Amino acid sequence: METRNIKLVIAYKGTHYHGWQIQKDKITVQGEIQKHLSVLLNHGVVLFGASRTDAGVHALGQTGNFHTTSQKETEVIHHALNKRLPVDIYIKKVQEVPLDFHARKNAQGKHYQYRIWISKEKPVFESETIYWLGDKKIDLESMITAARQIEGTHDFTSFASNAGRKDENKIRTIDTIAITERYPLLVIDVTGVSFLYKMVRGICGTLLEIGRGKSLDIPAILKDRARGSAARNLPPQGLTLMKVFY
Amino acid sequence: METRNIKLVIAYKGTHYHGWQIQKDKITVQGEIQKHLSVLLNHGVVLFGASRTDAGVHALGQTGNFHTTSQKETEVIHHALNKRLPVDIYIKKVQEVPLDFHARKNAQGKHYQYRIWISKEKPVFESETIYWLGDKKIDLESMITAARQIEGTHDFTSFASNAGRKDENKIRTIDTIAITERYPLLVIDVTGVSFLYKMVRGICGTLLEIGRGKSLDIPAILKDRARGSAARNLPPQGLTLMKVFY
Repeated sequence: METRNIKLVIAYKGTHYHGWQIQKDKITVQGEIQKHLSVLLNHGVVLFGASRTDAGVHALGQTGNFHTTSQKETEVIHHALNKRLPVDIYIKKVQEVPLDFHARKNAQGKHYQYRIWISKEKPVFESETIYWLGDKKIDLESMITAARQIEGTHDFTSFASNAGRKDENKIRTIDTIAITERYPLLVIDVTGVSFLYKMVRGICGTLLEIGRGKSLDIPAILKDRARGSAARNLPPQGLTLMKVFY
Repeated sequence: METRNIKLVIAYKGTHYHGWQIQKDKITVQGEIQKHLSVLLNHGVVLFGASRTDAGVHALGQTGNFHTTSQKETEVIHHALNKRLPVDIYIKKVQEVPLDFHARKNAQGKHYQYRIWISKEKPVFESETIYWLGDKKIDLESMITAARQIEGTHDFTSFASNAGRKDENKIRTIDTIAITERYPLLVIDVTGVSFLYKMVRGICGTLLEIGRGKSLDIPAILKDRARGSAARNLPPQGLTLMKVFY
Protein backbone atom coordinates (compact mmCIF):
# COMPACT_ATOMS: atom_id res chain seq x y z
CA MET A 1 0.00 0.00 0.00
CA GLU A 2 1.25 3.42 -0.88
CA THR A 3 2.13 5.67 2.04
CA ARG A 4 0.79 9.22 2.03
CA ASN A 5 1.75 12.19 4.18
CA ILE A 6 -1.12 14.32 5.48
CA LYS A 7 -0.82 17.78 6.99
CA LEU A 8 -3.37 19.13 9.47
CA VAL A 9 -4.06 22.70 10.62
CA ILE A 10 -5.52 22.46 14.11
CA ALA A 11 -7.39 24.75 16.52
CA TYR A 12 -7.91 23.93 20.18
CA LYS A 13 -8.65 25.40 23.56
CA GLY A 14 -5.89 23.98 25.75
CA THR A 15 -7.67 24.40 29.10
CA HIS A 16 -8.70 20.79 29.57
CA TYR A 17 -5.53 19.17 28.17
CA HIS A 18 -2.12 18.43 29.64
CA GLY A 19 -0.57 20.26 26.70
CA TRP A 20 -0.01 19.08 23.16
CA GLN A 21 2.43 16.23 23.67
CA ILE A 22 1.24 12.70 24.35
CA GLN A 23 1.83 11.47 27.91
CA LYS A 24 0.96 8.26 29.65
CA ASP A 25 -2.39 8.42 31.53
CA LYS A 26 -2.89 12.10 30.66
CA ILE A 27 -5.31 13.64 28.20
CA THR A 28 -3.34 15.61 25.61
CA VAL A 29 -4.25 17.21 22.29
CA GLN A 30 -1.84 15.03 20.31
CA GLY A 31 -3.11 11.93 22.11
CA GLU A 32 -6.73 12.82 21.45
CA ILE A 33 -6.25 13.44 17.71
CA GLN A 34 -4.00 10.38 17.26
CA LYS A 35 -6.56 8.17 18.97
CA HIS A 36 -9.35 9.21 16.63
CA LEU A 37 -7.13 9.09 13.54
CA SER A 38 -6.04 5.55 14.41
CA VAL A 39 -9.64 4.35 14.67
CA LEU A 40 -10.60 6.22 11.51
CA LEU A 41 -7.71 4.91 9.42
CA ASN A 42 -7.53 1.42 10.91
CA HIS A 43 -3.86 1.64 11.83
CA GLY A 44 -1.72 3.24 14.51
CA VAL A 45 -1.05 6.87 13.67
CA VAL A 46 1.82 9.06 14.90
CA LEU A 47 1.02 12.75 14.60
CA PHE A 48 4.04 15.09 14.50
CA GLY A 49 3.18 18.56 15.81
CA ALA A 50 4.96 21.81 14.98
CA SER A 51 4.83 23.12 18.54
CA ARG A 52 4.63 21.35 21.91
CA THR A 53 2.23 23.80 23.48
CA ASP A 54 2.03 23.64 27.30
CA ALA A 55 -0.98 22.76 29.40
CA GLY A 56 -3.53 25.56 29.19
CA VAL A 57 -2.00 27.12 26.06
CA HIS A 58 -4.27 27.31 22.99
CA ALA A 59 -3.88 27.11 19.24
CA LEU A 60 -5.77 28.52 16.29
CA GLY A 61 -3.12 27.45 13.79
CA GLN A 62 -1.13 24.51 15.16
CA THR A 63 0.08 22.19 12.40
CA GLY A 64 0.81 18.50 12.37
CA ASN A 65 1.50 15.71 9.90
CA PHE A 66 1.09 11.94 9.86
CA HIS A 67 1.75 9.08 7.52
CA THR A 68 -1.01 6.74 6.45
CA THR A 69 -1.51 3.83 4.10
CA SER A 70 -5.22 4.59 3.95
CA GLN A 71 -6.42 5.80 0.57
CA LYS A 72 -9.33 7.77 2.07
CA GLU A 73 -9.77 11.19 0.48
CA THR A 74 -8.60 14.15 2.54
CA GLU A 75 -12.11 15.61 2.63
CA VAL A 76 -13.44 12.35 4.03
CA ILE A 77 -10.74 12.28 6.72
CA HIS A 78 -11.39 15.95 7.50
CA HIS A 79 -15.11 15.51 7.97
CA ALA A 80 -14.93 12.22 9.88
CA LEU A 81 -12.18 13.45 12.19
CA ASN A 82 -14.05 16.64 13.10
CA LYS A 83 -17.16 14.58 13.79
CA ARG A 84 -15.23 12.52 16.34
CA LEU A 85 -13.24 15.25 18.07
CA PRO A 86 -14.46 16.93 21.29
CA VAL A 87 -15.87 20.49 21.34
CA ASP A 88 -12.51 22.09 22.10
CA ILE A 89 -10.50 20.64 19.18
CA TYR A 90 -11.21 21.46 15.54
CA ILE A 91 -9.33 20.52 12.38
CA LYS A 92 -9.26 23.56 10.10
CA LYS A 93 -7.51 21.97 7.15
CA VAL A 94 -6.46 18.52 5.88
CA GLN A 95 -4.05 18.45 2.98
CA GLU A 96 -1.85 15.84 1.27
CA VAL A 97 1.80 16.96 1.24
CA PRO A 98 5.09 15.51 -0.11
CA LEU A 99 6.33 12.49 1.85
CA ASP A 100 9.34 14.35 3.25
CA PHE A 101 7.30 17.18 4.81
CA HIS A 102 7.62 17.32 8.63
CA ALA A 103 5.43 19.75 10.60
CA ARG A 104 8.16 20.69 13.09
CA LYS A 105 11.38 20.26 11.13
CA ASN A 106 10.14 22.18 8.10
CA ALA A 107 8.61 25.07 10.06
CA GLN A 108 10.17 28.39 9.00
CA GLY A 109 8.56 30.40 11.77
CA LYS A 110 5.71 30.73 14.25
CA HIS A 111 3.30 33.41 15.32
CA TYR A 112 2.16 33.42 18.96
CA GLN A 113 -0.37 35.83 20.44
CA TYR A 114 -0.68 36.75 24.11
CA ARG A 115 -3.91 38.43 25.23
CA ILE A 116 -4.22 40.46 28.43
CA TRP A 117 -7.50 41.84 29.80
CA ILE A 118 -6.97 45.19 31.52
CA SER A 119 -10.16 46.02 33.37
CA LYS A 120 -11.59 45.99 36.85
CA GLU A 121 -14.32 43.67 35.53
CA LYS A 122 -13.33 40.02 35.54
CA PRO A 123 -14.11 38.49 32.12
CA VAL A 124 -16.23 35.53 33.26
CA PHE A 125 -16.74 34.21 29.71
CA GLU A 126 -13.05 34.36 28.77
CA SER A 127 -11.27 33.39 31.99
CA GLU A 128 -9.73 30.38 30.23
CA THR A 129 -8.58 32.19 27.08
CA ILE A 130 -7.20 35.52 28.25
CA TYR A 131 -5.09 36.69 31.16
CA TRP A 132 -7.01 39.01 33.48
CA LEU A 133 -4.72 41.68 34.90
CA GLY A 134 -7.30 43.87 36.63
CA ASP A 135 -7.46 47.63 36.32
CA LYS A 136 -3.83 48.72 35.97
CA LYS A 137 -2.18 51.65 34.27
CA ILE A 138 0.00 50.58 31.34
CA ASP A 139 2.74 52.62 29.71
CA LEU A 140 2.43 51.37 26.14
CA GLU A 141 5.35 53.42 24.85
CA SER A 142 7.82 51.78 27.22
CA MET A 143 6.56 48.35 26.20
CA ILE A 144 7.00 49.14 22.51
CA THR A 145 10.52 50.49 23.10
CA ALA A 146 11.47 47.33 25.01
CA ALA A 147 9.90 45.13 22.31
CA ARG A 148 12.17 46.78 19.71
CA GLN A 149 15.18 45.72 21.82
CA ILE A 150 14.01 42.10 22.04
CA GLU A 151 13.53 41.78 18.29
CA GLY A 152 16.45 40.34 16.37
CA THR A 153 18.93 37.53 17.02
CA HIS A 154 20.04 37.11 20.63
CA ASP A 155 20.97 34.54 23.24
CA PHE A 156 17.57 34.20 24.95
CA THR A 157 18.73 32.20 28.01
CA SER A 158 17.26 34.89 30.32
CA PHE A 159 13.78 34.30 28.90
CA ALA A 160 13.79 30.49 28.82
CA SER A 161 12.45 28.30 31.61
CA ASN A 162 14.96 25.55 30.84
CA ALA A 163 17.92 27.90 31.25
CA GLY A 164 19.67 25.12 33.14
CA ARG A 165 20.06 23.03 29.99
CA LYS A 166 23.56 24.16 29.11
CA ASP A 167 23.89 21.88 26.09
CA GLU A 168 21.21 23.66 24.09
CA ASN A 169 22.01 26.52 21.76
CA LYS A 170 20.03 29.42 23.24
CA ILE A 171 20.38 31.76 20.28
CA ARG A 172 17.04 32.51 18.64
CA THR A 173 15.66 35.08 16.22
CA ILE A 174 12.52 37.11 16.98
CA ASP A 175 11.24 38.75 13.80
CA THR A 176 8.62 41.08 15.24
CA ILE A 177 6.84 41.90 18.49
CA ALA A 178 3.70 43.95 17.87
CA ILE A 179 1.82 45.43 20.83
CA THR A 180 -1.74 46.51 20.18
CA GLU A 181 -4.16 48.08 22.61
CA ARG A 182 -7.81 47.37 21.93
CA TYR A 183 -9.15 48.43 25.29
CA PRO A 184 -9.71 46.52 27.53
CA LEU A 185 -7.63 44.03 25.55
CA LEU A 186 -3.86 44.34 25.24
CA VAL A 187 -2.48 42.04 22.56
CA ILE A 188 1.16 41.04 22.11
CA ASP A 189 1.97 39.33 18.79
CA VAL A 190 5.33 37.60 18.68
CA THR A 191 6.70 36.14 15.45
CA GLY A 192 9.99 34.29 15.27
CA VAL A 193 11.84 31.43 13.66
CA SER A 194 11.80 29.18 16.73
CA PHE A 195 11.49 29.55 20.49
CA LEU A 196 13.01 28.21 23.70
CA TYR A 197 10.85 26.59 26.39
CA LYS A 198 8.25 29.10 27.71
CA MET A 199 10.19 31.90 26.00
CA VAL A 200 7.12 33.76 24.71
CA ARG A 201 5.55 33.82 28.18
CA GLY A 202 8.87 35.06 29.61
CA ILE A 203 9.08 37.85 27.03
CA CYS A 204 5.46 38.88 27.60
CA GLY A 205 5.91 38.84 31.38
CA THR A 206 8.92 41.12 31.08
CA LEU A 207 7.18 43.48 28.65
CA LEU A 208 4.16 43.71 30.95
CA GLU A 209 6.33 44.51 33.99
CA ILE A 210 7.93 47.31 31.96
CA GLY A 211 4.45 48.50 30.94
CA ARG A 212 3.52 48.63 34.61
CA GLY A 213 6.41 50.95 35.34
CA LYS A 214 9.23 48.64 36.36
CA SER A 215 12.58 49.79 35.08
CA LEU A 216 14.04 46.76 33.31
CA ASP A 217 16.95 47.04 30.90
CA ILE A 218 16.45 44.59 28.02
CA PRO A 219 20.04 44.64 26.66
CA ALA A 220 21.34 44.00 30.21
CA ILE A 221 18.82 41.16 30.76
CA LEU A 222 19.84 39.51 27.49
CA LYS A 223 23.52 39.88 28.38
CA ASP A 224 23.01 38.34 31.87
CA ARG A 225 21.94 34.99 30.38
CA ALA A 226 20.20 34.12 33.67
CA ARG A 227 16.48 33.43 34.00
CA GLY A 228 16.31 35.51 37.19
CA SER A 229 17.13 38.71 35.32
CA ALA A 230 13.90 38.81 33.35
CA ALA A 231 10.43 39.02 34.91
CA ARG A 232 8.20 36.01 35.61
CA ASN A 233 6.31 34.15 32.89
CA LEU A 234 2.74 35.15 32.29
CA PRO A 235 0.24 32.31 32.86
CA PRO A 236 -0.61 29.89 30.01
CA GLN A 237 -4.26 30.85 29.42
CA GLY A 238 -3.37 34.08 27.59
CA LEU A 239 -1.19 32.37 24.98
CA THR A 240 -2.31 31.09 21.58
CA LEU A 241 -0.27 29.61 18.73
CA MET A 242 -1.77 31.49 15.78
CA LYS A 243 0.16 30.22 12.76
CA VAL A 244 3.10 28.11 11.69
CA PHE A 245 4.94 29.33 8.59
CA TYR A 246 6.50 27.06 5.94
CA MET B 1 -28.64 45.38 65.05
CA GLU B 2 -30.15 47.20 62.14
CA THR B 3 -31.02 45.09 59.12
CA ARG B 4 -29.89 46.30 55.70
CA ASN B 5 -30.95 45.13 52.23
CA ILE B 6 -28.15 44.78 49.68
CA LYS B 7 -28.61 44.43 45.92
CA LEU B 8 -26.03 42.67 43.73
CA VAL B 9 -25.51 42.75 39.97
CA ILE B 10 -23.87 39.47 39.02
CA ALA B 11 -22.02 38.04 36.00
CA TYR B 12 -21.28 34.34 35.57
CA LYS B 13 -20.48 31.65 33.07
CA GLY B 14 -23.02 28.94 33.85
CA THR B 15 -21.12 26.02 32.31
CA HIS B 16 -19.83 24.51 35.53
CA TYR B 17 -22.95 25.12 37.65
CA HIS B 18 -26.22 23.27 38.05
CA GLY B 19 -28.02 26.51 37.32
CA TRP B 20 -28.70 29.46 39.59
CA GLN B 21 -30.93 27.92 42.24
CA ILE B 22 -29.48 26.24 45.29
CA GLN B 23 -29.81 22.44 45.36
CA LYS B 24 -28.64 19.86 47.83
CA ASP B 25 -25.23 18.35 46.92
CA LYS B 26 -25.02 20.37 43.69
CA ILE B 27 -22.81 23.34 42.91
CA THR B 28 -25.02 26.27 41.94
CA VAL B 29 -24.40 29.98 41.44
CA GLN B 30 -26.75 31.00 44.24
CA GLY B 31 -25.20 28.42 46.55
CA GLU B 32 -21.68 29.56 45.75
CA ILE B 33 -22.38 33.26 46.37
CA GLN B 34 -24.46 32.58 49.52
CA LYS B 35 -21.68 30.43 50.94
CA HIS B 36 -19.07 33.15 50.58
CA LEU B 37 -21.44 35.89 51.78
CA SER B 38 -22.25 33.88 54.90
CA VAL B 39 -18.58 33.51 55.79
CA LEU B 40 -17.89 37.15 54.99
CA LEU B 41 -20.80 38.52 57.03
CA ASN B 42 -20.68 36.00 59.87
CA HIS B 43 -24.31 34.94 59.55
CA GLY B 44 -26.40 32.77 57.26
CA VAL B 45 -27.36 34.68 54.11
CA VAL B 46 -30.29 34.01 51.79
CA LEU B 47 -29.75 35.51 48.34
CA PHE B 48 -32.91 36.14 46.30
CA GLY B 49 -32.20 36.05 42.57
CA ALA B 50 -34.23 37.74 39.84
CA SER B 51 -34.00 34.78 37.45
CA ARG B 52 -33.53 31.06 38.07
CA THR B 53 -31.20 30.50 35.11
CA ASP B 54 -30.83 26.84 34.06
CA ALA B 55 -27.65 24.76 34.08
CA GLY B 56 -25.30 26.03 31.38
CA VAL B 57 -27.09 29.39 30.97
CA HIS B 58 -24.99 32.50 31.66
CA ALA B 59 -25.54 35.97 33.06
CA LEU B 60 -23.90 39.32 32.57
CA GLY B 61 -26.60 41.17 34.50
CA GLN B 62 -28.33 38.82 36.95
CA THR B 63 -29.52 40.63 40.07
CA GLY B 64 -30.02 39.44 43.61
CA ASN B 65 -30.65 40.86 47.07
CA PHE B 66 -30.00 39.74 50.63
CA HIS B 67 -30.59 41.02 54.12
CA THR B 68 -27.75 41.46 56.55
CA THR B 69 -27.17 42.80 60.04
CA SER B 70 -23.52 43.42 59.19
CA GLN B 71 -22.56 47.09 59.07
CA LYS B 72 -19.72 46.49 56.58
CA GLU B 73 -19.59 49.11 53.85
CA THR B 74 -20.85 48.01 50.43
CA GLU B 75 -17.41 48.62 48.87
CA VAL B 76 -15.83 46.35 51.44
CA ILE B 77 -18.39 43.61 50.78
CA HIS B 78 -17.93 44.07 47.02
CA HIS B 79 -14.17 43.74 47.12
CA ALA B 80 -14.03 40.89 49.64
CA LEU B 81 -16.75 38.89 47.85
CA ASN B 82 -15.04 39.16 44.47
CA LYS B 83 -11.78 38.07 46.05
CA ARG B 84 -13.44 34.88 47.27
CA LEU B 85 -15.51 33.97 44.23
CA PRO B 86 -14.24 31.52 41.55
CA VAL B 87 -13.05 32.69 38.10
CA ASP B 88 -16.47 32.26 36.50
CA ILE B 89 -18.53 34.42 38.90
CA TYR B 90 -18.05 38.18 39.25
CA ILE B 91 -20.03 40.74 41.23
CA LYS B 92 -20.40 43.85 39.09
CA LYS B 93 -22.19 46.03 41.61
CA VAL B 94 -23.09 46.07 45.33
CA GLN B 95 -25.63 48.65 46.44
CA GLU B 96 -27.73 49.28 49.53
CA VAL B 97 -31.46 49.42 48.66
CA PRO B 98 -34.69 50.02 50.61
CA LEU B 99 -35.66 47.15 52.90
CA ASP B 100 -38.70 46.21 50.83
CA PHE B 101 -36.77 45.74 47.56
CA HIS B 102 -36.90 42.17 46.22
CA ALA B 103 -34.78 41.22 43.19
CA ARG B 104 -37.42 38.95 41.65
CA LYS B 105 -40.72 40.46 42.83
CA ASN B 106 -39.75 44.02 41.91
CA ALA B 107 -38.32 43.17 38.49
CA GLN B 108 -40.14 45.11 35.75
CA GLY B 109 -38.53 43.24 32.89
CA LYS B 110 -35.59 41.17 31.68
CA HIS B 111 -33.32 41.17 28.67
CA TYR B 112 -31.99 37.80 27.45
CA GLN B 113 -29.57 37.33 24.59
CA TYR B 114 -29.14 34.16 22.52
CA ARG B 115 -25.96 33.85 20.43
CA ILE B 116 -25.65 31.48 17.46
CA TRP B 117 -22.40 30.84 15.57
CA ILE B 118 -23.07 30.23 11.88
CA SER B 119 -19.86 28.96 10.35
CA LYS B 120 -18.25 25.75 9.20
CA GLU B 121 -15.46 26.46 11.71
CA LYS B 122 -16.19 25.22 15.20
CA PRO B 123 -15.48 28.03 17.70
CA VAL B 124 -13.11 26.17 20.05
CA PHE B 125 -12.68 29.15 22.40
CA GLU B 126 -16.42 29.84 22.74
CA SER B 127 -17.98 26.37 22.71
CA GLU B 128 -19.40 26.99 26.20
CA THR B 129 -20.81 30.46 25.53
CA ILE B 130 -22.34 30.29 22.06
CA TYR B 131 -24.39 27.76 20.13
CA TRP B 132 -22.51 26.42 17.10
CA LEU B 133 -24.91 25.76 14.24
CA GLY B 134 -22.39 25.01 11.48
CA ASP B 135 -22.50 26.49 8.01
CA LYS B 136 -26.21 26.90 7.29
CA LYS B 137 -28.14 29.31 5.12
CA ILE B 138 -30.37 31.60 7.17
CA ASP B 139 -33.32 33.61 5.90
CA LEU B 140 -33.09 36.60 8.20
CA GLU B 141 -36.21 38.28 6.79
CA SER B 142 -38.44 35.34 7.72
CA MET B 143 -37.02 35.32 11.23
CA ILE B 144 -37.69 39.03 11.65
CA THR B 145 -41.25 38.67 10.37
CA ALA B 146 -41.89 35.81 12.80
CA ALA B 147 -40.31 37.77 15.66
CA ARG B 148 -42.83 40.60 15.04
CA GLN B 149 -45.64 38.07 15.52
CA ILE B 150 -44.22 36.80 18.82
CA GLU B 151 -43.89 40.29 20.29
CA GLY B 152 -46.81 41.45 22.39
CA THR B 153 -49.04 39.81 24.97
CA HIS B 154 -49.97 36.17 24.28
CA ASP B 155 -50.60 32.84 25.93
CA PHE B 156 -47.11 31.34 25.54
CA THR B 157 -47.97 27.73 26.53
CA SER B 158 -46.57 26.49 23.19
CA PHE B 159 -43.14 27.88 24.01
CA ALA B 160 -42.89 26.76 27.65
CA SER B 161 -41.28 23.51 28.79
CA ASN B 162 -43.64 23.22 31.75
CA ALA B 163 -46.71 23.38 29.54
CA GLY B 164 -48.20 20.62 31.67
CA ARG B 165 -48.62 22.92 34.66
CA LYS B 166 -52.23 23.85 34.05
CA ASP B 167 -52.54 25.99 37.17
CA GLU B 168 -50.08 28.63 35.98
CA ASN B 169 -51.17 31.67 34.04
CA LYS B 170 -49.31 31.30 30.74
CA ILE B 171 -49.96 34.82 29.47
CA ARG B 172 -46.77 36.83 29.12
CA THR B 173 -45.66 40.01 27.38
CA ILE B 174 -42.65 40.14 25.07
CA ASP B 175 -41.64 43.76 24.47
CA THR B 176 -39.11 43.29 21.67
CA ILE B 177 -37.24 40.60 19.79
CA ALA B 178 -34.28 42.04 17.89
CA ILE B 179 -32.36 39.82 15.47
CA THR B 180 -28.91 41.02 14.49
CA GLU B 181 -26.48 39.39 12.09
CA ARG B 182 -22.82 40.06 12.82
CA TYR B 183 -21.40 37.28 10.69
CA PRO B 184 -20.60 34.61 11.78
CA LEU B 185 -22.62 35.56 14.85
CA LEU B 186 -26.41 35.69 14.82
CA VAL B 187 -27.76 37.41 17.93
CA ILE B 188 -31.34 37.26 19.19
CA ASP B 189 -32.19 39.82 21.90
CA VAL B 190 -35.44 39.16 23.74
CA THR B 191 -36.86 41.67 26.20
CA GLY B 192 -40.03 41.05 28.17
CA VAL B 193 -41.76 41.54 31.47
CA SER B 194 -41.42 37.93 32.62
CA PHE B 195 -40.96 34.51 31.06
CA LEU B 196 -42.23 30.96 31.39
CA TYR B 197 -39.83 28.05 31.96
CA LYS B 198 -37.34 27.76 29.04
CA MET B 199 -39.54 30.11 27.03
CA VAL B 200 -36.66 32.13 25.53
CA ARG B 201 -34.93 28.98 24.30
CA GLY B 202 -38.24 27.78 22.84
CA ILE B 203 -38.78 31.07 21.01
CA CYS B 204 -35.21 31.11 19.69
CA GLY B 205 -35.47 27.49 18.54
CA THR B 206 -38.65 28.28 16.64
CA LEU B 207 -37.18 31.43 15.08
CA LEU B 208 -34.08 29.54 14.00
CA GLU B 209 -36.15 26.77 12.37
CA ILE B 210 -38.02 29.46 10.45
CA GLY B 211 -34.69 31.02 9.46
CA ARG B 212 -33.58 27.64 8.15
CA GLY B 213 -36.59 27.49 5.86
CA LYS B 214 -39.20 25.61 7.87
CA SER B 215 -42.68 26.95 7.34
CA LEU B 216 -44.02 27.60 10.83
CA ASP B 217 -47.06 29.76 11.47
CA ILE B 218 -46.54 31.75 14.68
CA PRO B 219 -50.18 32.82 15.23
CA ALA B 220 -51.25 29.16 14.78
CA ILE B 221 -48.53 27.93 17.17
CA LEU B 222 -49.59 30.44 19.82
CA LYS B 223 -53.23 29.46 19.35
CA ASP B 224 -52.45 25.73 19.70
CA ARG B 225 -51.24 26.16 23.29
CA ALA B 226 -49.29 22.88 22.98
CA ARG B 227 -45.53 22.58 23.36
CA GLY B 228 -45.34 20.23 20.36
CA SER B 229 -46.46 22.96 17.97
CA ALA B 230 -43.32 25.08 18.35
CA ALA B 231 -39.80 23.89 17.49
CA ARG B 232 -37.37 22.44 20.00
CA ASN B 233 -35.49 24.55 22.55
CA LEU B 234 -32.02 25.69 21.61
CA PRO B 235 -29.31 24.41 24.00
CA PRO B 236 -28.45 26.41 27.15
CA GLN B 237 -24.90 27.53 26.27
CA GLY B 238 -26.09 30.21 23.82
CA LEU B 239 -28.29 32.00 26.38
CA THR B 240 -27.26 34.90 28.62
CA LEU B 241 -29.33 36.99 31.02
CA MET B 242 -28.11 40.48 30.10
CA LYS B 243 -30.10 42.78 32.35
CA VAL B 244 -32.96 42.96 34.84
CA PHE B 245 -35.00 46.14 34.74
CA TYR B 246 -36.55 47.85 37.81
